[in-house]
Amino acid sequence: MHHIRDMTIAFLGLGLISGSLAGALRAAKWGGELIAWGPRAKSLERGQALGLIDRFNLELEPVVAGADIVVIGAPPIATAELLPEVLGMAQAHGEPIVTDIASIKASVVEAAIPQYKKFVPGHPIAGSEHSGVGAAVADLFEGREVILTPLLQTDPSAVGVVQAMWESAGARVTLLSVTDHDSALAASSHVPHMLAYVLTTMLSQHPLMPMKHGGGALRDMTRIAASDPGMWRDIALANRDAILTAMDAVAVQHAHLRNLIAEADAPAMEALFAYCREVRREHDAILNPLPRLEEDAS
Amino acid sequence: MHHIRDMTIAFLGLGLISGSLAGALRAAKWGGELIAWGPRAKSLERGQALGLIDRFNLELEPVVAGADIVVIGAPPIATAELLPEVLGMAQAHGEPIVTDIASIKASVVEAAIPQYKKFVPGHPIAGSEHSGVGAAVADLFEGREVILTPLLQTDPSAVGVVQAMWESAGARVTLLSVTDHDSALAASSHVPHMLAYVLTTMLSQHPLMPMKHGGGALRDMTRIAASDPGMWRDIALANRDAILTAMDAVAVQHAHLRNLIAEADAPAMEALFAYCREVRREHDAILNPLPRLEEDAS
Repeated sequence: MHHIRDMTIAFLGLGLISGSLAGALRAAKWGGELIAWGPRAKSLERGQALGLIDRFNLELEPVVAGADIVVIGAPPIATAELLPEVLGMAQAHGEPIVTDIASIKASVVEAAIPQYKKFVPGHPIAGSEHSGVGAAVADLFEGREVILTPLLQTDPSAVGVVQAMWESAGARVTLLSVTDHDSALAASSHVPHMLAYVLTTMLSQHPLMPMKHGGGALRDMTRIAASDPGMWRDIALANRDAILTAMDAVAVQHAHLRNLIAEADAPAMEALFAYCREVRREHDAILNPLPRLEEDAS
Repeated sequence: MHHIRDMTIAFLGLGLISGSLAGALRAAKWGGELIAWGPRAKSLERGQALGLIDRFNLELEPVVAGADIVVIGAPPIATAELLPEVLGMAQAHGEPIVTDIASIKASVVEAAIPQYKKFVPGHPIAGSEHSGVGAAVADLFEGREVILTPLLQTDPSAVGVVQAMWESAGARVTLLSVTDHDSALAASSHVPHMLAYVLTTMLSQHPLMPMKHGGGALRDMTRIAASDPGMWRDIALANRDAILTAMDAVAVQHAHLRNLIAEADAPAMEALFAYCREVRREHDAILNPLPRLEEDAS
């Protein structure tokens, strides 16, 4: 086995996340080759032209066979569909480490071959409302968390390699169980997206078309409503139960705040708002790892 | 009367908005004096030290009497409390134009002296989760909307002067009725703030403390939960009915989306999400008037 930083990494599907990872590894002077497979040449050619990958192949098997680390760069449903084939090829060709970036882990893990010990489920907490390899940026993971959800049978040394790869890209790596990951992410990511959709829908159906009076607050509260519709449809399908649970918790809090406002309960409102300010401020360093990303306008 | 740009402007209360307006007028080489009154010297001294104002006075009457334009720089409830006294002084001392920046207009207009024709209710759609004159920035209004809600009796020339002042600060001015303003802003600003509070509360009560796994999406969806609690308590009180109406519309959309997810209605979800993306993109230039304020990370 090579030294970790000399390992060949194969990206299966080249999009925003995998392209940004390739760019980050380039910037960190990763020593191994960066190669890619995809169903169509277009994004692969773009990635090569951008200098993100060394070469690509439209045949899957030689790409898996030639890699030390395989990164499946696809949304959850596509990842689950691709995984059995990829792990089968990996078993047959030198057992490379296989990881993924899907934002839901249960549906992916269910699709894995249980006895393949070098599959390390992963999820970088970074993204954009933009998609495609053309939106890739090398500092996308700087200071961001990557959650790995190893299974009981997962080889710890494979976890270590995937961790080292992400740390080279600037991320910090934490470990969670699959269930905790999907429950936490429903609350921290999936439901915030659903709220952006809910808010945008409400505004678009309002007779005064109030979105045209929006300022920085509305800019931020609706930015992710411009995310990829197909990807979020799949996430909503794949993490349905956890999302519904978190949406119900939102509905409870929404009804609670509505009640405080209806009752004009000024002290309780102020206490709630002050508490939220404290909670938000406590998480500021996590949510704003790059100071230049913080903004003042609202 | 002076040429508009040579008019003396008095800021009653010097905070983020009024301080930023002073800074923007300075940057635009406004010719008239910029003076201020406030209940305490501290923020006024700060504003003078920052070069935002020429001088200040802790006595209200000479400041109103010495101004051509009086800008009441206070939240809605404080504005409504201060307004009768200020308009009374204005009537007694040369009838300066009086305007305000309160984000709710009905409760302010109700507090005005109806026969004073030079009161121009206003609301700049700009702000920050930070507060105080120390957070003032001269480009806060660049490309942003300022809504004026003149009444039937309002002197059109006074509206023109307030419009010219805001345009000097980089803003674009639109006119709305008081009722439409409060209804539109409940939907475009007040309820988005309530949703940030609702989301933050839900996350803080989740057993996994998922906010620590937040990325750019959560950063944006909770940023305004760090806003000034007292100001938002007052807004919730002062625009209660319109906020409740918009919150109920949110609850309807929330229940609708929850239902689509529960039924795993993939085509309807994708159509909804794609529609939201279109709506958001159509408003991108309004919501992101300064290109440097747009971010990619999520």
